[in-house]
Amino acid sequence: MRVPVRIVLVGTSHPGNIGAIARAMKTMNLDDLVLVSPKDFPSAEATARASGADDVLSQARMVDSLSEAVADCGFVVGASARLRSLTWPTIDPRSAAKEMWSKIAHTQVAAVFGPEHSGLTNEDMAYCQKLVHIPANPDYSSLNIAMAVQILCYELRMASIDFESFLRDEAPASENPLANAQELEGFHQHLEDLLADVGFLNPDHPKQLKLRLRRIFHRASLDRNEVNILRGVLAALSPDSSNKTEKNLTNKN
Amino acid sequence: MRVPVRIVLVGTSHPGNIGAIARAMKTMNLDDLVLVSPKDFPSAEATARASGADDVLSQARMVDSLSEAVADCGFVVGASARLRSLTWPTIDPRSAAKEMWSKIAHTQVAAVFGPEHSGLTNEDMAYCQKLVHIPANPDYSSLNIAMAVQILCYELRMASIDFESFLRDEAPASENPLANAQELEGFHQHLEDLLADVGFLNPDHPKQLKLRLRRIFHRASLDRNEVNILRGVLAALSPDSSNKTEKNLTNKN
Repeated sequence: MRVPVRIVLVGTSHPGNIGAIARAMKTMNLDDLVLVSPKDFPSAEATARASGADDVLSQARMVDSLSEAVADCGFVVGASARLRSLTWPTIDPRSAAKEMWSKIAHTQVAAVFGPEHSGLTNEDMAYCQKLVHIPANPDYSSLNIAMAVQILCYELRMASIDFESFLRDEAPASENPLANAQELEGFHQHLEDLLADVGFLNPDHPKQLKLRLRRIFHRASLDRNEVNILRGVLAALSPDSSNKTEKNLTNKN
Repeated sequence: MRVPVRIVLVGTSHPGNIGAIARAMKTMNLDDLVLVSPKDFPSAEATARASGADDVLSQARMVDSLSEAVADCGFVVGASARLRSLTWPTIDPRSAAKEMWSKIAHTQVAAVFGPEHSGLTNEDMAYCQKLVHIPANPDYSSLNIAMAVQILCYELRMASIDFESFLRDEAPASENPLANAQELEGFHQHLEDLLADVGFLNPDHPKQLKLRLRRIFHRASLDRNEVNILRGVLAALSPDSSNKTEKNLTNKN
């Protein structure tokens, strides 16, 4: 599912960061990148760091001012490593992602990131309804700008998907399908017969131990291949088999 | 709050990534890095990319095998960009972070990341209780390894802090404290007197409009400085003041 949130970079210094940001965006299904007066762009370094996300780079728009970049936006958040005064409404990336999704049906939404070393100015923040702050280590909050974009884009994607159904849709079919009930029953019968043979099951209460063993293997959710392996183990452990093995050894000697 | 989770990198190729990972870890309060057979380490490039997190790099331990790296760990998760079969217990970084925190009191916890291009092998995964999968864009899941570490470390930190109290503790004290009730009352009185002077308040129902105005400014939670600015505005707008200004202009001409 496309995340229709615009990422706006103001005065970015390092083209490598712009490339890494394009890649970060594409991994999380964002594609709308606007660059306000980048210091060095287009650039071979940006393209190299973008890896396979060069389409996001080539579609990126360049503008001269933040006001132009967010002109059509009804909801804009500014990302800042610095905490400003508490009177500026400050939210974490998770809350920001939820709030951005709640606005998307009604208006264009954007997230703005300032220059690497100085961050957004107060003039830039005047275009932003909220300040997004990644709650980094107060003693070392030096988060790379591409990392900050990655975290916000990750939260936007997390807010858009249901992980369980994502797994159902995207996981490759297992090469070893889970064992079905008949196969499992065959294994359990085999195991219980063997334990009865060696006198391990309490003849008065055989059911209790059987149930415990079954519970263990149910939790393991065995696949077909594993059931075959385990039945091989049981076969190898059965008294008949050990006789056979001894005979085989004897024969070989 | 320190996050006592070990990050284990298996066979990392690019020293720049190791540096970026040290930085990513430190921003989220992790410091325990173990490198299993890195291709090129120590390296000036790693130190450069680590920025101010070179202490995490210099403390990093180097070992020859994953088994050595996680020998003392009771809970290990493996990060994979590839989705394996569903029979491997697969969780997202958020659930992983919660589960890791729930084990920390009882045992050493680790997260393992494979080589950049190939990821963890099945032999590596044999040391892992769970597979952590970042639910990236299925059409472009090429997440940089340092980005993946950053996301997991971010989730570990998010799971350890309460953002509201983080803001209370870490935000710089506002230079402009919020206006107190007396200051606000002074402003509202000033405004209401002015509106009464110019005949704007409905003499039959003055209270209704007053209340609405007060509600607007309460929502704005004005600070002391803003109250002073607004009172300046009111003073400038009062009929007496405009007479004065005209006089001043007349005097100047």
